[in-house]
Amino acid sequence: MASPYSPPMQALIDELGRMPGIGPKSAQRIAFHLLKVPEEDARRLAQSILNAKAKVRFCEMCFNISDEPQCSVCSDERRDRTMICVVEESRDVVALEKTGVYKGLYHVLLGAINPLEGIGVDQLKIRELMMRINDAEPAIQEVILSTNPNTEGDVTAMYLQRLLAPFEIKVTKLASGLPVGGDLEYADELTLGRAIEGRREVGA
Amino acid sequence: MASPYSPPMQALIDELGRMPGIGPKSAQRIAFHLLKVPEEDARRLAQSILNAKAKVRFCEMCFNISDEPQCSVCSDERRDRTMICVVEESRDVVALEKTGVYKGLYHVLLGAINPLEGIGVDQLKIRELMMRINDAEPAIQEVILSTNPNTEGDVTAMYLQRLLAPFEIKVTKLASGLPVGGDLEYADELTLGRAIEGRREVGA
Repeated sequence: MASPYSPPMQALIDELGRMPGIGPKSAQRIAFHLLKVPEEDARRLAQSILNAKAKVRFCEMCFNISDEPQCSVCSDERRDRTMICVVEESRDVVALEKTGVYKGLYHVLLGAINPLEGIGVDQLKIRELMMRINDAEPAIQEVILSTNPNTEGDVTAMYLQRLLAPFEIKVTKLASGLPVGGDLEYADELTLGRAIEGRREVGA
Repeated sequence: MASPYSPPMQALIDELGRMPGIGPKSAQRIAFHLLKVPEEDARRLAQSILNAKAKVRFCEMCFNISDEPQCSVCSDERRDRTMICVVEESRDVVALEKTGVYKGLYHVLLGAINPLEGIGVDQLKIRELMMRINDAEPAIQEVILSTNPNTEGDVTAMYLQRLLAPFEIKVTKLASGLPVGGDLEYADELTLGRAIEGRREVGA
């Protein structure tokens, strides 16, 4: 069917529909919203996209987002340079930093292995991770594989585990188990199963 | 808490979060997506916003979206100029046009009365509707109130019904059969077509 919209409107709907989590109906809704708001509001959104794209870069060391060549974590002298926490996305760095528990460095893969979406090991920053570990001074003592606890994340972690096996490096994973403050009866079976497997002795 | 993102990134997340149906988490997800895609993809989205905003205008007669001073419906000589179908948004025109049942003109209010969002009768194109009906040549015979079948839409329809009462015009509503509490744009073509055919006169 021919589009009921004029080309500029259809182009806007198409472009919005390419964003993750925005379907055709949402794209249409947002497009109409943009037509109704004052000129300067729409201009500000467009400008913020161009501005972020121009100014925000990936850290040359860990591929976290950054304004500078190196991100705030990599350029912080107080961080423990012998530990690398490997995550899928920059937003995982944000989540982990909020805990205040981790004091080492990060490495952002910019995704996870996902054959259905055509993301293989070459699309991820895996080669960069291995080169970084190889060249690190002081030497890396521990790599924490912190990919998401789903199929793609687990597969990616398994792949990295094999790559790292020949190195003399401790490789760890985040503990899986019950979320703090959650109810045991609402935990799914897989989580509960992993919580039992990973049980620790208390008060030792 | 201070934002964990640099100002250009936070600005992008904030602007995206202003769009309807996009919460803070979605805004973050889209912002990261935009950082990862090639430069020209992000530029194309920004450009499509500016382009649509510059080229797409509202029809001077019915406030449907249009590239020209008058929209494709208003400038179509074959349409029945004695009927006006009053809708909330341009996307409702698109939905009704897809049915192929209605042959008259439209009037887009650009919203519905919604005190919670500060939308009163002055924010809508109601005055323009009344002036249009007053000046119409040939005279308007029928006004179909096709606001959404929810509280705001019903209140808007009731208000219009009162305004139209002094005129010698048949005022109708879309037949019920539309799911109550739903959005007009999500109704399927058949249901919507039947609703037009079975429209009833109100307050008779």
